[in-house]
Amino acid sequence: MSKLPRFDEWTCPLPLRHHTGIVMGHGGGGSLTADLVEHLFAPAFRNDTLDAMGDSAVLELPAGATRLAFSTDSYVIRPLFFPGGSIGEIAVHGTVNDLAMAGAQPLFLSAGFILEEGLPLDHLGEIVRRMSEAARSAGVLLVTGDTKVVEKGHGDGCYINTSGVGVVPAGLKLGPHLARPGDAILINGRIGDHGIAILSVREGMEFETAVVSDTAALNGLVAAILAATPDVHVLRDPTRGGVAATLNEIASRSQVGIVLDENALPIGGDVESACELFGLDPLTVANEGKLVAVVASEAADAVLDQLRHHPLGREAARIGTVTDQHPGLVSARTKIGGTRLIPMPLGEQLPRIC
Amino acid sequence: MSKLPRFDEWTCPLPLRHHTGIVMGHGGGGSLTADLVEHLFAPAFRNDTLDAMGDSAVLELPAGATRLAFSTDSYVIRPLFFPGGSIGEIAVHGTVNDLAMAGAQPLFLSAGFILEEGLPLDHLGEIVRRMSEAARSAGVLLVTGDTKVVEKGHGDGCYINTSGVGVVPAGLKLGPHLARPGDAILINGRIGDHGIAILSVREGMEFETAVVSDTAALNGLVAAILAATPDVHVLRDPTRGGVAATLNEIASRSQVGIVLDENALPIGGDVESACELFGLDPLTVANEGKLVAVVASEAADAVLDQLRHHPLGREAARIGTVTDQHPGLVSARTKIGGTRLIPMPLGEQLPRIC
Repeated sequence: MSKLPRFDEWTCPLPLRHHTGIVMGHGGGGSLTADLVEHLFAPAFRNDTLDAMGDSAVLELPAGATRLAFSTDSYVIRPLFFPGGSIGEIAVHGTVNDLAMAGAQPLFLSAGFILEEGLPLDHLGEIVRRMSEAARSAGVLLVTGDTKVVEKGHGDGCYINTSGVGVVPAGLKLGPHLARPGDAILINGRIGDHGIAILSVREGMEFETAVVSDTAALNGLVAAILAATPDVHVLRDPTRGGVAATLNEIASRSQVGIVLDENALPIGGDVESACELFGLDPLTVANEGKLVAVVASEAADAVLDQLRHHPLGREAARIGTVTDQHPGLVSARTKIGGTRLIPMPLGEQLPRIC
Repeated sequence: MSKLPRFDEWTCPLPLRHHTGIVMGHGGGGSLTADLVEHLFAPAFRNDTLDAMGDSAVLELPAGATRLAFSTDSYVIRPLFFPGGSIGEIAVHGTVNDLAMAGAQPLFLSAGFILEEGLPLDHLGEIVRRMSEAARSAGVLLVTGDTKVVEKGHGDGCYINTSGVGVVPAGLKLGPHLARPGDAILINGRIGDHGIAILSVREGMEFETAVVSDTAALNGLVAAILAATPDVHVLRDPTRGGVAATLNEIASRSQVGIVLDENALPIGGDVESACELFGLDPLTVANEGKLVAVVASEAADAVLDQLRHHPLGREAARIGTVTDQHPGLVSARTKIGGTRLIPMPLGEQLPRIC
């Protein structure tokens, strides 16, 4: 668990100091809720559009915007703080990335908190601080929010929903149904870091590893790709279910085959060892800062070049090819020269990783 | 609790039948999640924009739209089914109403489900069916969603976040800071029904009453009001914290005084009795189908007339006046001719009513 500031080190505003933890009344819509908004959420997320106590934020759209991307995700990750991040960063990055995968420029986020009675206020403060930093560095504004409180034992500290709105450039068409035989499959770096980082600090599972979550906002990287070529067909972030789930979905929706080259898959040594130890397939382990790009073969080198010049894409690789063989199926050429089928994972081997 | 269809009466699609309850894998992003989306969510919410398995929905904006309303709310109501509704209706109506209170035409909703392991699938099916009906009758499309599952004991059956996007007409300005001395304060009907309906079925509290929740989508009513007059200054739905919290917020944000006339407040006899029994002030009890409108005095009669011609406003009443006395304070002329201060409620006397 990341080191948290002690309550008295954290700049807990005076009206909140007589509580050390969340009480039911913080979700009641009265003056306790107002305290939380005024002294904790509003200072963290301060911006002109933030509608701190209103029903809705009212947003001016950029001139000429005609298409919106709209996305939602709830975050129930355990533990709340982990190597490389917290539920705060994940809640911002995850939704920003979902918008970016539609080719949108993410603009606005909402945040809905479901807090468990007794959650230490300094934990909430730290989560909110990290959300605020993540939003700022991704270039999005958190403009509207909501707080509910559930009784001790009916939650898990903190669940967060973020929804996001972005603007999709005119003419852009991306989607999991648009992969075509011959397309190249690229990834921007090592897989499995997020899932293994979470596993390493899960109750009953703790083990020593240097792996930290790859959680990151990918909208800048997507903008670089789209500036390099119009020949991008699919962008997806392989989160829950990992690269295996993402590629199976693309194969199924596009009715194409996909052949992976396991030799080309970037995987860290620690992740590989942990996967061997726990019997996990790294292809099914979650990522929070990776994207899979399916691009026209001719454009692959240009896109790889763009990716590798970006801090989040230095280890980008071409990991496979789309074919017209075995539509709907994903297979891999293994390191020892064989072929194996990569099925759609049934569920998640590591539940609650986001 | 409302009568639920038995599992075998509910049209549970075949691939889901071998589960009677939610399992962790339904939140794993793999084929179990896909089953739930394909066989339960997608059929219920079917529309052209619904992005059943994608990262974001991509939405065409109405021509000329330049301002969006964007709102979010998480729903943690207990119990999930109650007289007059369920978490499904509340989750749609609540967010539709938040958009409507900004004067927006609500267009699109997202839905984020946090399900507890073991939630009976027929309960989820019934909740989703009710959401779908509520969305259809409110004229909004549910276009994107997310499902997470938490272990048994870490949730409460089902929490739902909905976020919403609407378009705000050009030139319209509404807000809790815009009440002016002399304005009339109107409400569209009886207060307290929702909170008392929930209380009547709360564990340990069950009592006999005919009160049912007033949960309703108010966007049609708002459209009627805005068509009648440009002189609407504030629209708010008095949910958590009731009319007392709403009026205190308006008084504080507009720096005006508000004087209520308790004789004019529409309250049902059963709600009044229940409030007496439990020592509750009906002004602090939640509503889910009410709005408070602050309008220029000259426009009050025209707006009341519009309200009373609408099925959701038949018992509309003028309940108070904005003054320049005691800015920031709300008081009431009581039924016996006295005056009492109506303070901002601290928290919620009945937690988890939405």
